[in-house]
Amino acid sequence: MRCLLRAACGLLAVFAAPQLFAANLRDHVEGYRITHESQIVGQLDELTRIRSIAADPAGIAEAADRLQSLLKERGFETKQLSAGNGTPAVVFGSLRSPGARRTVVFYAHYDGQPVTPSEWKSDPFIPAMRSGPLNSGEHDIDLKAARSPFNPEWRLFGRAASDDKASIVAFLGAFDALKASGQKMSVNVKVVWEGEEEAGSPHLAKILRDNQTLLASDLWLIGDAPLHQSRRQMIYFGARGITGVSVTIYGPIKALHDGHYGNWVPNPAVMAATLIAQMRDDEGRILIPGFADHVRPMTPVELEAIRSLPPIEDELIRECGIGRTEGNEQLPSSLMRPALNIRGIRSGQVGAAAANAIPTDAVISIDFRLVPDQTPESVRATVESFLRDKGWTIVADVPDLDTRLAHARIARLEWEPGYPAFRSDLSTPAASAVLAAARKAAQGPVALLPMMGASVPIYLFADIFKVPVIGLPIVNHDNNQHAANENLRLQNLWDGIETYAAMLAALSW
Amino acid sequence: MRCLLRAACGLLAVFAAPQLFAANLRDHVEGYRITHESQIVGQLDELTRIRSIAADPAGIAEAADRLQSLLKERGFETKQLSAGNGTPAVVFGSLRSPGARRTVVFYAHYDGQPVTPSEWKSDPFIPAMRSGPLNSGEHDIDLKAARSPFNPEWRLFGRAASDDKASIVAFLGAFDALKASGQKMSVNVKVVWEGEEEAGSPHLAKILRDNQTLLASDLWLIGDAPLHQSRRQMIYFGARGITGVSVTIYGPIKALHDGHYGNWVPNPAVMAATLIAQMRDDEGRILIPGFADHVRPMTPVELEAIRSLPPIEDELIRECGIGRTEGNEQLPSSLMRPALNIRGIRSGQVGAAAANAIPTDAVISIDFRLVPDQTPESVRATVESFLRDKGWTIVADVPDLDTRLAHARIARLEWEPGYPAFRSDLSTPAASAVLAAARKAAQGPVALLPMMGASVPIYLFADIFKVPVIGLPIVNHDNNQHAANENLRLQNLWDGIETYAAMLAALSW
Repeated sequence: MRCLLRAACGLLAVFAAPQLFAANLRDHVEGYRITHESQIVGQLDELTRIRSIAADPAGIAEAADRLQSLLKERGFETKQLSAGNGTPAVVFGSLRSPGARRTVVFYAHYDGQPVTPSEWKSDPFIPAMRSGPLNSGEHDIDLKAARSPFNPEWRLFGRAASDDKASIVAFLGAFDALKASGQKMSVNVKVVWEGEEEAGSPHLAKILRDNQTLLASDLWLIGDAPLHQSRRQMIYFGARGITGVSVTIYGPIKALHDGHYGNWVPNPAVMAATLIAQMRDDEGRILIPGFADHVRPMTPVELEAIRSLPPIEDELIRECGIGRTEGNEQLPSSLMRPALNIRGIRSGQVGAAAANAIPTDAVISIDFRLVPDQTPESVRATVESFLRDKGWTIVADVPDLDTRLAHARIARLEWEPGYPAFRSDLSTPAASAVLAAARKAAQGPVALLPMMGASVPIYLFADIFKVPVIGLPIVNHDNNQHAANENLRLQNLWDGIETYAAMLAALSW
Repeated sequence: MRCLLRAACGLLAVFAAPQLFAANLRDHVEGYRITHESQIVGQLDELTRIRSIAADPAGIAEAADRLQSLLKERGFETKQLSAGNGTPAVVFGSLRSPGARRTVVFYAHYDGQPVTPSEWKSDPFIPAMRSGPLNSGEHDIDLKAARSPFNPEWRLFGRAASDDKASIVAFLGAFDALKASGQKMSVNVKVVWEGEEEAGSPHLAKILRDNQTLLASDLWLIGDAPLHQSRRQMIYFGARGITGVSVTIYGPIKALHDGHYGNWVPNPAVMAATLIAQMRDDEGRILIPGFADHVRPMTPVELEAIRSLPPIEDELIRECGIGRTEGNEQLPSSLMRPALNIRGIRSGQVGAAAANAIPTDAVISIDFRLVPDQTPESVRATVESFLRDKGWTIVADVPDLDTRLAHARIARLEWEPGYPAFRSDLSTPAASAVLAAARKAAQGPVALLPMMGASVPIYLFADIFKVPVIGLPIVNHDNNQHAANENLRLQNLWDGIETYAAMLAALSW
């Protein structure tokens, strides 16, 4: 089976254009970076200070304006694309390259996840440079006093520093490095920097559809997501979809003394636990009948790509502090399956606040990771049918007394919209070109991931534009994205500049 | 089978001494109460204002002093019995009655459950009189302006107003009424008012053992607990025991993006749900092998007593807003079995705060209700053996990294001390005398409960003093004890005064 992928990759190499990215160009980009480390990190620092999170629309707007001017300074035609009503804008930029046949859209998002400042070691919007990850014996770095070249293991901590502002800064750094060397771009360049990805991209489809001509291209390169845990450059060809549901289960109208009423008044925490155990076991297997009906099998090439990924399991087990894994597959294989994750469960009280009472309700928060060809709608239908088979009455609103009295088991479901998965062909000419260019930049092997375990709505690009969509992440896997103390490791930024430079100057098919 | 109980009760009636509590005496007690409603309610109001909760040692001490002086004013010899180190005192009082052969100890507790003021409609320590229960269309009553006789459906809201300060006030009211009529007590009277029952009576055993001579008696009457839901006067002959455990289950050291790590890194919320479902089903059945090994069967007399309780299930189902019950027994039968109650479960986040992540841990708070002859120790051993059989490693401390890596399933157990159950003979001469006196006071049938579903540590009294221990509650079942908006219905206080008067003046065997 191994030969399948080798054959594909060997074939692709034919289409690559390494001559456009000769060793001396790579050296030049590196040289430019070394002499501009302060400016590049300063750019990331400046962007990270802008509070571009959903809770701060002014911060989002400020970031969009700043990014637009950064593109304009570099000669891009620019525009802010919006769905109206003050919703976050897509920052669009376009630059024609004389003689180029292909047009590539570089996608990233400039909004960050919400923050809980109390969980952070320092202010999420006042970037802090540290000598390494937290709890590694790291110390703070005074950036103003620091002289380049910086230690590449240093990390800049701040919300969105990694997810995705680093991707934007790497793109700009690569562009500047190429320009400084007088290097021509090999492709026409378009930029789509989204401002509400972390909010679920509610207006992205409309913006894309409203601007189809403006956004026409031959390829989308997605700068979102972290690199493979081996730190190897990675390319991904899809992403799992997602949907989520909040399940509220009802017990008695008021909390009841369990000494006087337990064993008789139903306990909603137990009902919730029973339901979870019926839906999924503790080895990750989804037990809901029919859940796998829409699962498209992986192709031999995809399976081979998964098998070729460098093993990182032993190190990850230690990093996570776990004594077992769910199931007995390697991590990447596990992520190719649909998943049912319990994000949280809450009923009654625990610890010192726990009263000897039957709780009034239980809330389970679930997210589902979808694979092709599941859809949020098919998952919803399957789950609801399962619940009904188990005797549950599904309601959308908080049940009134009559409803409570009429039904033995009531679950209030609040579905999140979600979107489907996407897995694309590993062997298109565009994919081969990206792979060849990435290899040149990385000066080593590149990990090919048929589908990322996490979800990004890249199905949209493929769905609307019918062109290849390829993920090209650059940031460290241990970046705490979506959590407190998000951080970007400098070496990843340096490598990202090389990678983007290769995509701008050496991509050809 | 019904005849069994009838025979027993018929027999017992022979020992009763109704002549000591003639109709005119009952009328006198009622007359006294009617003319003293303001003072009696004022007494309850005054005691409820004292913040006698564990979090407020000064409030506990103030209540003890006040209660001691109330007994002293009435001619009791009094003493505060303490285990030292500033721990809450038992208020002890003793009054000999010329010619009495028997000595009865009246037990109640003056401490209340902790409060969460934000959950209360009014300050828990500024009693509020209302025309009925909350959400019944009730209105506030201005007690200062109100003229007696009060509407007996009025309720006084405040922490410990019902559990147990009403019991103390009913005792004092009964005593005063009898004294006002010149009625001699039929028994020597001792009073034990405890100050840390709601904290699990940690020093009660020591205080009882240290004062065995002082506390010598022929009978303990326990004023704690609410009445039967039918509002019928109730006598109980035991109570379930209790123990509890907090179970912490460990997932990854830090929360992980479930898109990248789900299906592979174990999800502790799922492990917790699986464990709960293995221990107990949603019909209340405990599935832990051996859990019932120590369960002593009910006697025919006890079973008959249970069957004779007035049915209250239909009304309760409506009151609780539930569409089914666990199992298909009547409530009292359900409460004669051991129970495993989930007080709470907590893992990750739900609602808007839910992140697409694998939580780091899950905490389950469990309380067990024990029946004879289970002990906290036997329950603990059975549960721990079950966990080990299911592959769990039990730890007492937060596991370090090496421990986490070495074990597939780690549960940190924090056991609460607890105490065993108690169920005593329904047919002792003392029991017959209490029943006869209670019937006279109630002027109607009395509900006999072999064992209360809730837990009170009355096994201690029997264990140490080897005399009958009988529960004699007076407060309304819907009193929200242990929760917000605890309240006492006035009619229950009035009836309680009659009941206590009968115990003081008509008890003889």
